[in-house]
Parts: sequence; structure tokens; C-alpha cells
Amino acid sequence: MADSTSPRLRANAIRALAMDAVQAANSGHPGMPMGMADIAEVLWRDVLKHNPNNPAWADRDRFVLSNGHGSMLLYAVLHLTGYDLGIDDLKAFRQLHSRTPGHPEYAETPGVETTTGPLGQGIANGVGMALAERLLAAEFNLDGHDIVDHHTYVFLGDGCLMEGISHEACSLAGTLGLGKLIALYDDNGISIDGSVDGWFRDDTPARFESYGWQVIRNVDGHDAEAVRAALAKAQAETGKPTLICCKTIIGFGATNAGSADTHGAPLGGDGITAARSTLGWDGEAFEIPEVVRTAWDRREQGAAAEAAWNERLAAYRAAHPDKAAEFERRMAGDLPADLVDKLARLVEDVQANGKKNATRKASQAVLNAIAPGMPELLGGSADLTGSNGTIWKGVEPVTPETVKGQYVNYGVREFGMTAIGNGARLHGGFLPFSGTFLTFSDYARNAVRLAALMRIRNILVYTHDSIGLGEDGPTHQPIEHIGSLRLMPNLDVWRPCDDVETAVAWESALLRQDGPTALALTRQNVEHQPRTAEQLADVRRGAYTLWEPDAEPVAVVIATGSEVELAVAAAQALSAEGTPTRVVSMPCEEVFLRQTPEYQQRVLPAAVTTRVAIEAGSTGTWWRWVGATGAVIGIDSFGVSAPAGDAYQHFDLTTDRITNTVRDLLN
Amino acid sequence: MADSTSPRLRANAIRALAMDAVQAANSGHPGMPMGMADIAEVLWRDVLKHNPNNPAWADRDRFVLSNGHGSMLLYAVLHLTGYDLGIDDLKAFRQLHSRTPGHPEYAETPGVETTTGPLGQGIANGVGMALAERLLAAEFNLDGHDIVDHHTYVFLGDGCLMEGISHEACSLAGTLGLGKLIALYDDNGISIDGSVDGWFRDDTPARFESYGWQVIRNVDGHDAEAVRAALAKAQAETGKPTLICCKTIIGFGATNAGSADTHGAPLGGDGITAARSTLGWDGEAFEIPEVVRTAWDRREQGAAAEAAWNERLAAYRAAHPDKAAEFERRMAGDLPADLVDKLARLVEDVQANGKKNATRKASQAVLNAIAPGMPELLGGSADLTGSNGTIWKGVEPVTPETVKGQYVNYGVREFGMTAIGNGARLHGGFLPFSGTFLTFSDYARNAVRLAALMRIRNILVYTHDSIGLGEDGPTHQPIEHIGSLRLMPNLDVWRPCDDVETAVAWESALLRQDGPTALALTRQNVEHQPRTAEQLADVRRGAYTLWEPDAEPVAVVIATGSEVELAVAAAQALSAEGTPTRVVSMPCEEVFLRQTPEYQQRVLPAAVTTRVAIEAGSTGTWWRWVGATGAVIGIDSFGVSAPAGDAYQHFDLTTDRITNTVRDLLN
Repeated sequence: MADSTSPRLRANAIRALAMDAVQAANSGHPGMPMGMADIAEVLWRDVLKHNPNNPAWADRDRFVLSNGHGSMLLYAVLHLTGYDLGIDDLKAFRQLHSRTPGHPEYAETPGVETTTGPLGQGIANGVGMALAERLLAAEFNLDGHDIVDHHTYVFLGDGCLMEGISHEACSLAGTLGLGKLIALYDDNGISIDGSVDGWFRDDTPARFESYGWQVIRNVDGHDAEAVRAALAKAQAETGKPTLICCKTIIGFGATNAGSADTHGAPLGGDGITAARSTLGWDGEAFEIPEVVRTAWDRREQGAAAEAAWNERLAAYRAAHPDKAAEFERRMAGDLPADLVDKLARLVEDVQANGKKNATRKASQAVLNAIAPGMPELLGGSADLTGSNGTIWKGVEPVTPETVKGQYVNYGVREFGMTAIGNGARLHGGFLPFSGTFLTFSDYARNAVRLAALMRIRNILVYTHDSIGLGEDGPTHQPIEHIGSLRLMPNLDVWRPCDDVETAVAWESALLRQDGPTALALTRQNVEHQPRTAEQLADVRRGAYTLWEPDAEPVAVVIATGSEVELAVAAAQALSAEGTPTRVVSMPCEEVFLRQTPEYQQRVLPAAVTTRVAIEAGSTGTWWRWVGATGAVIGIDSFGVSAPAGDAYQHFDLTTDRITNTVRDLLN
Repeated sequence: MADSTSPRLRANAIRALAMDAVQAANSGHPGMPMGMADIAEVLWRDVLKHNPNNPAWADRDRFVLSNGHGSMLLYAVLHLTGYDLGIDDLKAFRQLHSRTPGHPEYAETPGVETTTGPLGQGIANGVGMALAERLLAAEFNLDGHDIVDHHTYVFLGDGCLMEGISHEACSLAGTLGLGKLIALYDDNGISIDGSVDGWFRDDTPARFESYGWQVIRNVDGHDAEAVRAALAKAQAETGKPTLICCKTIIGFGATNAGSADTHGAPLGGDGITAARSTLGWDGEAFEIPEVVRTAWDRREQGAAAEAAWNERLAAYRAAHPDKAAEFERRMAGDLPADLVDKLARLVEDVQANGKKNATRKASQAVLNAIAPGMPELLGGSADLTGSNGTIWKGVEPVTPETVKGQYVNYGVREFGMTAIGNGARLHGGFLPFSGTFLTFSDYARNAVRLAALMRIRNILVYTHDSIGLGEDGPTHQPIEHIGSLRLMPNLDVWRPCDDVETAVAWESALLRQDGPTALALTRQNVEHQPRTAEQLADVRRGAYTLWEPDAEPVAVVIATGSEVELAVAAAQALSAEGTPTRVVSMPCEEVFLRQTPEYQQRVLPAAVTTRVAIEAGSTGTWWRWVGATGAVIGIDSFGVSAPAGDAYQHFDLTTDRITNTVRDLLN
């Protein structure tokens, strides 16, 4: 059938669906989809390598909608090109349990590669995807077999470019020369408060050139041929990422096009009628002419593209069967077959041969033991490699010259680092982890949240986890951070008390399939604790009885991390003086909360109401475990600049404080 | 006495003190002070307008050490120029209760203008200071009386420039053309992980030119005359901020100068001996030759400078007595004399005449009532002005053309906005507040923390405070945020339940002298609650009995914000069926915790152990109030994209849930 559609007509299908869906939901953002429709039409119909019938195809191009409020653009092109997203899904835009939520959500909608909406993080995810592609290509492409060879495309707007994370991620992308990253900037001059001229006058092209990007300026975002030419030029540049600056009109086609009014509210019935008239778009709401549907459908082309790649993969498999199997394992996200046993043996070994050590160093020892057998690990630090202990023996660092290996010096870019890690994980092939001081988890917090929301693995190594970091003082001493991270849904937070719990924490983080894990690790040395085999097994339950008196306990001290050794000393003293006291080590509250009530009851019997919790941080989340009849020893003010021992004395985080508190509660 | 000292000799005094203090503390950062000593010598001795005997002089130049780990540089120049910071203070570097903590801390050390260390925030504070200077000058300088006329100088390093916040703040500074902001970049090519060439290849001068800054390139940071010339050129440019790029050698003078080894560890005894030899510096540790001391002393020059300004102020006062009094009030941070009464009347009026409303709109109504009489208010939003309701009638927006007024469109820059607010407050003359969605407090979190640590006023207007925001979905729906903010020391978090509590929350935030306040406000409408005069007064205590049954209560429901009306309905239903139930509204836990035990006991009697707390967010911090025998109704998973009502039903945040929970607890 001859195609009688024009690019504009096809783009108008996006516009119409966006208007209709936002109107039906009575909320949403028509402005961006109407403004970027012509660009999306070229990219999604003619340029993007994708197969609507298999959104998981390993070598597909990745697409990220960093300006995620324009979700209807993405839903429209997924629908039109033939993904499993029907017109009824679009009609249910922004409704409970629909597959078309207000902002694109990973794993909720086929073809959505990452969750976006919090501005600037999409482009950082895109940098992570492009980095993953480059590293995998370096690792797996052999003598002409290019089984990893795809682009990452990112749509972004003024908001993304104002956010600081765009600087962090794009600066690193330029430094590393990620040539397959192509970002398309929706330069419409409008943000929610109005014309950006009042608050955003960057020369954005010059800014990106300063990062080492190729910049294609002044592209008419409503001219399909201009967009096509720009994309071709972007693809031709393989040594630098490319920013294509597209001049567009927000809400193109609407009566108030070019104004902030079209950004985030329905156009209204009359507005839609007028826009349809301007655009020359007939028919009912949500109705797409068959000729337009046919022109948009990319299922055949997608299947052919994937089939061609499958042939290449078959040839690769024939030439390099082990590598092919490894590639498929990596892309499937399966862990090495021996990992579970290896971790279990490591934990036993550390229990048998452990020693007094800082848990950050114990963490590094785990990496040295495990990482060499895990090529999927992608480590890094925000310029604190030595302090975080995130590097391991023999690892190859990623450098701008080579761009291969498993360790990224992210520079002082905590937020970008975490979001890049998310992107690498979403791309597939890698299990990212990265380090900074616990206090600076603040900088990265919303990227941790998005990992938790997406239920993806990303391991956050947060060292210097308390006032125990000492002299650097209150700006660097976390207080509220552990508690604050615990409150984040679907994030597991481990604060191990010794080398053994550190190994178990890593085991849990690596084996966890459905979310990120934060490890809070000490700067200072902590005692190695003895454990029976049963206790060792119970570490994996998040909390357990670490020290038990000879007699039935009348009190329980609950502690985490560096305060566990204080609790043990206190319990021993109390028990010796006739107050049998149990010590419960609770390295991971979230894991403990997932245990059976019976197990929880065994560790913290309801009958023992004299309970004291101690942690060198906020007390606010501890009352759950001690109840109204208990006490919490912690810190609810900021820290102090002093040697660690002096700081502990200053805040009276001491064995004596624990024993006195238990005695007071019992009297 | 003739001055026989050279610039290098004077700079070496900084180097020697930094080496000695870090060695004595056995921790700290000698590399930056030794690298930037020559620059500091020119700035602090010859250029900076300051009076060591009066660090509070209103028209002093502001100095910010954004690379705060180089704290010994600042302590050294404060000591040498004659501030009240003795050699014994320097000897106590990084020790408990010293005035020389590991990183510079506001209010701990005379002459320290802001707390720095968390990288990138210092330059953002500097932008806030320069903005405050510009706005005050526009407001107060009249017909030739330039009583506000000073510069803001910022030292910063590669780490600050890698951090995203440097982009946010410097982009806005360029847009607004803050010509009296002068930043000196310590371009030493080194960060903690080594040569930055591996992870940071920005063309920083080009980047800053893209922001509209003047950039002075390739200044030899060890050549006093070159630095002096660059500073003169920077001062001559009044329409743009200036970045002076100083090439320096980290650890200048040390054996391993130019290497990351000098960054963050003592040089050691031998290292110091070698460095002293290289530098030609004799004498004992902490010993400064008298001739050097004399050459550094700036007390006389500082007193003369301030005296000259005092004369100008006297002339101004003679010509404009009211304006002069207003200027002094503003710089003292005193609130308008009538504010306390005005707020009290407003609260009473809202109680008497209030209505069902969204608390974000109630908040805007407070601004409309109060802000016109508060020229010190500096409002703004991160591109959500209409949604946050942070603007008020008649306010003049700050534009790039005028740079005067009281409202800043910050653009999509939450972190920069908050740190700029901190800077404006630290400068003096302004009481900043700014808005974003509560979820995006994540982006700004560490700047909120620094406001709390510094004990300075900055009011954070966080709207769309729960799943009640509806369709935008889980990326935009806060869950853990209110609890996480509550855990932050010295931050007051208000979550008002209606228009009245919103007015009281603003009253508390405005009158609070010793820290920041966050306001969590609804998108959706909430019921106006009736109150007696006593109840109205008790709102100010952070928690109070809002609804009391006729009989002695056997149960208490504690609620905040939009869930209070559910609690009232539930308590009324329970009481009607014979279970007398009290409702405690707890808009601000922190304020309630500061009340007497007697008052707390009166609101939450120990005898009533059947307690249910409800809040549309994390349950984790609520156990303190309900104890082991109570229940918490909240949300510990992520939200959903759906209309607000559907979302509430989905999470079963309902009156029925409360009544059923109370019944279950009693059975």
C-alpha cells in the first residue's frame, strides 16, 4: 500500500493522542508532546533501532525521555509503532493501575527504559546506558563481530539543563567521549514559570562544547528533514556525545502554542477543537486513521532488524561460544553460577579468621575476594576511592583513553554517579556499585529513590558512617542519614558491626534481585564478634541474638554497627552483676521486618519490655523496637569536629551509658 | 617600620601554619592552603575590604571558602590579619570545642561567613550573598549615598566545579549579571583520586563564559602581581560575575607538591622539615616572625575602612533617617515591630473566617497578608511558582534587567535555590523562603542540612506533600520525606491540617530565630477545623487536643495535615458508638518535643495506651508516640499515579480504617 502520509500528519497523531489523553485524565502535560512530536516522528519511525514485539532485545537502541512529564509522547509512539500498549491503555492515562502513569515508569509499560520525571536524571541514566554499551562493546565485540552496537537517545528540556545533575553527567560523558549518546534538546524557551529568559540564559551549545560534546545548533524541530540530517550527523560522530539543539514551539498546534499555558494542563474541549482545526486533524478523540496507523507500524522493520542481529549473534556464538554464553548471562542479569557458594564460604571464612577492622576495609576485603570473579561489577567512587575502599586488586579502571574496564572514577559527582549507575543497570550487563561518604548520600538521594522505585540493583557504599569519622566535623558526620535511608521504601540499609556482618551485607546486596542496597560502613576499627553457626546463619535475617546471658534475659540491648561492641560489653557487665541482658545486633531493619512474626518474637520477646537501642545517629526510627517502656541512646543534634574517641565521649555513647540506662529502666 | 617582607614570605606564613596545624591535629588538608597561599595573601592583605576587629561590619566584603577542606588557609589569614583567633586556637585545630573545626563553621569562628565542606555549596552561598548585596544596594543606595557597596569573593576548587550545584548557582549568577561576585578557581589539576584529567576535562573557562561570566584565564596563582591584576580586572567588570582561573601547584613547597598525596594528610615531620627548607621558612612550629606578623596585620587599615563607611552612613542617616533606620533593622535581622501582633491577629482572623482550602493556598493567603509589610522577605520557587503559591500580590520580581525586588524565579534548581537562600540570609538583610514540591526536597537536602547546622533562618515551602498530589504519580509523591526531614537536627517541620495551622506554621517559621523551618503543604483541599481560644493557642505548642469526646477518652488518634479530618471523623464515629476517642493534631513534632513533660502528658496521657497515628507517609518515626501497644497507619511503599481520591482509597487511608484499627486495638 502506498504511504500517503506526511511526516507532519504522522506527528499530528502524537499531538492528537496527547491532547485527548490529557483531556480524558483532566491532568497532564500536552505542551511537550505537541512540541517534540515532529522530532519523535523522525526518530521513532525512521532512525531508532527497536523491535516493538521485543522490548528486551539486547541490542536495541535505548530511548530516554528525560523530560518525563511529556509521557504521552512516549506512550503515543509506543502505541503507534506497535508495542503492547493499546488505545485503552492510552484512555486510562494517569488512572489507578493503568499502564500509562503520569510519568514514565520502568517495568510498568513495555518500551519504557527508565522512570523519569525528576528532572535531569533521565539524561544521567542515558549517560549510564551509553557507558554500559561502550564497556560491553569493548568487552564482547571480537574480530568483526559487533554484537553490541547501539545508540542511546535522550529527549530533554530546559528543566533538565537547569538541574545540576545535567552538568555532572554530561561533563563525565564528554570526558569519556561517549560517542553513541545523542541528546535532543527541546529548546522551546519556556518552563513552568514562563519564558526562561528571566532565569536561564546559558549559551547551552557553548556549555556542551566546553564538555567536549559535538553540538548541532539551530535545528528546526518542526522540520523532519532537518531533524533527520542532524541525527545522521550525530551518528557519524563516534568520538563525542552529541547534543542536537532543536528549536521548537511548545504546544505546537494549540491556540496558545509557545506559551507556558500549554505546559501542564489540559487544553479543554474548545482548545482541542481549535488545535485539531489548526493541525488539520479530523476524527473522534483517540481515533487514528488507518493509513496513519499503517505508516507508523514498525513491527515488521523491528522484527527484521532483530532477526539480522540474531544472525550476527549466531555467528558470534559459533566463533566464541563461551563469550556468547557469558554475554547472554550478563544481559539476563544472572549472577555467576558459583557466587552463592563463594559468598557463603567467604562469610564462614571471615567468621573463622576475621579480625578487628574498619567495616569499610572489611568491605574492600569482600571485593578483593569476590569481584575478580564478577565481570558484571561496575565499581566507582565520587573521588573518594581510597577512603571508600571501593576498588579491588587487578581491576581495570575506565579511562578516557580506553573506556573499558570495571572501575569508574566518577569525580566529585555523587548524584550523577548514582543515576549513571542506575542507567548502567537498566541497560543491562552490569551490576553497579559506588561509594561516597554517608553524609553525601544527601546529594544523591533522589537517584537512590529512583533505584528503589524501579526495583533495580544498585549498591551504595556509604563509608564514614557516624561521628566516628572524627575531625572532619559536623558537615561530614552523618546523624539523620541512616534513619532517613531506612524510611525510603524498598531500600535495604545495612549497618554491619564487624567484618562478618559486612560480608553478609555484601552477600545480601549482591543476591538481592528487586532493589538497591545501601551499606553504612565505619571509618574506624570495630571488634570482630564470635558467633555460633546458628548465629552466623541468622545474620542473614537482619537481626539476631548476638550475645546471650546464661540466665533468661530481663533486658535487651539492640545495636547496630560500631555501637554493637559497646552493647556487648554493657550486657556482659550487666549480666555479671545479676541483670541478665541480651544483645540483639540489627544490621538491617528492612530484612528483619521481612522475617516471620515467630522469628521476630524469638529475637525480641514481647515479655522483655526493658529494651535499650543504641546507634550513633538519630533516635527517631528506633521507638518501634523499644516501645514506650524503653530507651534510645543516639544523637539528635549535629556532630563535632574532634578525634573519634573524643566525639564518642562528648555524646556519651559509652558502655556506662548503656548499663546505667538499663539499670534506670529496671528501677 | 619599613616592611622587609615579600609576598612569598607572607604567603609562606599561611603554608607554615597549615602544615603545623595539620601535623598537630594529625589530620587535615595541607595541600589547598599551600597551593592557594599566594592568592590569599594578595586578597586578604591588599584587596579584601574587612575589619578584623568587627567581623559584623555590614559593608565588609564577603569571603567564602567553597573548598572548605582548606580551612587552615582561612584560619591562618584570620589569625594573621588580626581577628580574634589566637595561635592557641590554631594549635587546637580539629580538637573538641576548639574554634578551629575541621571545616569552617559559621558562628564558631570570627570571620567565617558560612559553613563549607560539602562541595559546591560555598559558591552557591556566594551567589546568594552577591544577590543580597545587589538587591540591598538597589533598595537602599540613594542619590550618591552608596552605603551598600561590597564584593563577594569565593575560593573554589575542582571538586566544587564538578558538583552539579556549581552549575545551578553559576548559571543563575550569570543570568542575573551579579558583577560583584568574584570567584577564584584553584586550578591545580588534582582531586583526591589523582589527576583530574581522568574524569574532569571540562573547558571550565568556556563553560563559565557560556553562563555569561567574565573569565580571566591562565593566571599564575603563585605570582602575586598577576593575581592582583586579575582582581583589579574583575572589580572593573560590574555587569558580570568573574571567574579568575589560577594555575596553582597543590601543596606548593612540599616535596610531593603537585600530587594528590598532599591533599588530605599531614606531611609528617620530615615532610615539614623539607618543605620549610624549600620555602626558606625558619623557626619553630606555629612561630611567625614579628616582621611577618606586622606586615600581615590589617587591623589599622580595617578600622579606617569601617570608619570611612561609618561617615558615609552618618551622612545617609542625616539625609534619609527612616531609610537608615530600616537598613540597620534589616541588617540586624530584627523583624518588623508590628509583626508579632499582625501574625496573632491573622491567626485569629483565619480561625474565625477560615474555609476549606488547600494548605498551599492558605499559605499563599498568609503571604498576601504579611509579605507586603516585610521588605526583608526574599521569596522564590524552583519553577513552580503557581503550584507552590510562593508569590504574593504586588511583589516585584527580580529580573535580569532590574535585579531588584523580592521574588526570585530560581528556575529548576532546587539545590542551588536553597543554598542561595542560605547565602542571602548569611549576608544579612533578607529572610529567604523558597518553594518546590516536597519530593524534590531530596535534591536540596544537604543545603537544608547546612541551614540547620548554621542555625539560620530559611523557610522551605514544600507543597504537594503526599499521594494527595494524585496523577503525577510515584516520582512526585513524597512518602519518606516528612519523616526524613523530621530526623534532621534543628529543622522544624510543620505539616498543618488546615488554614489555621498553616498560619501558625508561618508564624512559627517567621519568628523562629535559630534555624530553618520546612512547611509541608497539601495540593488538595482540607477542611477548616473549629477551635476554642485555648486550642488555638495550643497549636503553637506543636501538638494539641483538637477534638475531645464528652467522656474521658479511652483512645487517641494522632494525625497531621490532610489526615486530621479523617481522624476527627473517626473519633466522632467511635465516640458516638461508645468509644470516647480524642484527636491530637500534631503539626510540628519538633515544637511539641520542646514543650514541658507536663504539657506533653496532658495531650498524650500515659494512661491512654490505645493510640493510633495516621499520616500519608512513612510510619517509621511514629512509634515514639503510639508505643508497642499502638498502631500506625501510613504508607511504606511508593505511591501510585491516580486521582487523589483513588490513591487514598488504594492505600486505605480512610476513616473506616482508623475506626477499625482502634476497635481492633481495644479488642
